[in-house]
Amino acid sequence: MLGLGLIGGSLLRALVAAGRTAWGYNRSPETVRDAEAAGFDATADLAAALRRAAEQDALIVIAVPTPIVGQVAAAIAAHAPGCALTDVVSVKQPVRDAVAEHGLLPRFVGGHPMAGTAESGWAAGYAELFTGAVWVVTVDEGADPQVWTQVATMAVDAGAQVVPAESAEHDAAVARISHLPHLLAEALASVGAGSQLALALAAGSFRDGTRVAATAPELVRAMCEGNSTALLGALDEALELLTNARASLAAQNDLTELTDNGHAARRNYEQARRSEIRNLEPGIPGWREQLRDAGRAGGVWCEVTA
Amino acid sequence: MLGLGLIGGSLLRALVAAGRTAWGYNRSPETVRDAEAAGFDATADLAAALRRAAEQDALIVIAVPTPIVGQVAAAIAAHAPGCALTDVVSVKQPVRDAVAEHGLLPRFVGGHPMAGTAESGWAAGYAELFTGAVWVVTVDEGADPQVWTQVATMAVDAGAQVVPAESAEHDAAVARISHLPHLLAEALASVGAGSQLALALAAGSFRDGTRVAATAPELVRAMCEGNSTALLGALDEALELLTNARASLAAQNDLTELTDNGHAARRNYEQARRSEIRNLEPGIPGWREQLRDAGRAGGVWCEVTA
Repeated sequence: MLGLGLIGGSLLRALVAAGRTAWGYNRSPETVRDAEAAGFDATADLAAALRRAAEQDALIVIAVPTPIVGQVAAAIAAHAPGCALTDVVSVKQPVRDAVAEHGLLPRFVGGHPMAGTAESGWAAGYAELFTGAVWVVTVDEGADPQVWTQVATMAVDAGAQVVPAESAEHDAAVARISHLPHLLAEALASVGAGSQLALALAAGSFRDGTRVAATAPELVRAMCEGNSTALLGALDEALELLTNARASLAAQNDLTELTDNGHAARRNYEQARRSEIRNLEPGIPGWREQLRDAGRAGGVWCEVTA
Repeated sequence: MLGLGLIGGSLLRALVAAGRTAWGYNRSPETVRDAEAAGFDATADLAAALRRAAEQDALIVIAVPTPIVGQVAAAIAAHAPGCALTDVVSVKQPVRDAVAEHGLLPRFVGGHPMAGTAESGWAAGYAELFTGAVWVVTVDEGADPQVWTQVATMAVDAGAQVVPAESAEHDAAVARISHLPHLLAEALASVGAGSQLALALAAGSFRDGTRVAATAPELVRAMCEGNSTALLGALDEALELLTNARASLAAQNDLTELTDNGHAARRNYEQARRSEIRNLEPGIPGWREQLRDAGRAGGVWCEVTA
């Protein structure tokens, strides 16, 4: 486990709790001491942690912030280039690019556990963070079926539900349902604060619509700015819908199109159901495409059933 | 009580439960029968209900949809022009205009109980609908202090907290904190539905941000189209914030301004506290301005304290 912050630290705890052998690296000696004091196997020596991974043919998990992924990938290329490799960083394409740059792509399958809190750091972590959460495991062209199964099995061991998805499609999807909601919440909060009386009258629709604006701005920026290309597309779609609605409200006092479509879309979301992906062993002909189709349709991967 | 739908029907129940004498009119004989069967005093004869109000110098409450307010005001002008008059319709300026057209403004003070459910009609009503809810009682130039006190006392008897506000300022405020959130939720739901994978991955931020898109589109349209002028202003503010953020994201990959301001605004909202308005008897010099200031500052009117 390379990085013992909220996600990496929680995953180390979850995997040990599931009976797996796992050890961690963190560059801060204080964090390493805290992890050791809690009974975990941790070190501040990255090269040593990686040499041990190479010896034991371990699955390496990159759990550091996006800007540091490149440095960590360089160390992996130097000390453990043959190990299976994944990550737990939210935006997938930049991680994939950094890993490719160091020649590690053949043994890499990306991941994104959709879990978190407003807190960060080792102390904020806990083994149950991933229980019932969605964990995206990427299925890009060239993905190794054995590595894919290793990564998905780890996520299942951590308590998560695995949704297979292509990296670029994942990034576009989270722009729509995670990053865009943050931008709209920030804008709504600001418009509400434009009137003292408005804040005095604010009730349910404003409270819910601005909830995620309570997230620390630096976390929102890290997510959104790290996925700017996809986010610009989603934001443009929202701006077009709102601009058209504005024109229709001004000219015909009519909001039928926006409200009918929005209501149908919300119903669609409410009625979506998850199902288990069965009889689809990574490695069979067409497995990547089938996994991606299954993920889009609400399927979750549970285990090798063949 | 003129109109026995969700709001009028709940208010009739609440006032009778508070020990007050109250009777209702509804144009549908079925609704009148249902109200009578539940033990309430109701009639389908509008003129008779109004003549009785004139005889007993009752406070008349307009509780019909906005498009019918003019007709009802005409009947009041014919049969009970001297009675104190209020309403429970959401957008205040159009009601005020309709009432003024029939010469009833001197005895009129508007109201807006900020309570409701997705349901409608007599059967959906209940006496506790207003318990703890904010009830805006309007304070416009020329408002009669005795009528104001009568209306506010009725709202308090129904269990609500009275926030005083000018009609136009109320309409502008609810555009910001109630009608704009609906438009953003509709747009967000539609953008989410633009990707199957997005709906499969949607979690907390999307669920909360689209919650009110589950409201029946005709109810959303009635609110928003009935307050179009104020809503266009609020929507333009949101569009400007989002368009500026889009430009900054595209050019500098920077969302600092939107996220810092949005976060501060949400904190501002979370930290707002209600206080009791004390020692402010309607009719004292400057009472209207003082009540409006107190409402903006989060004050609620509880009773005459002088």
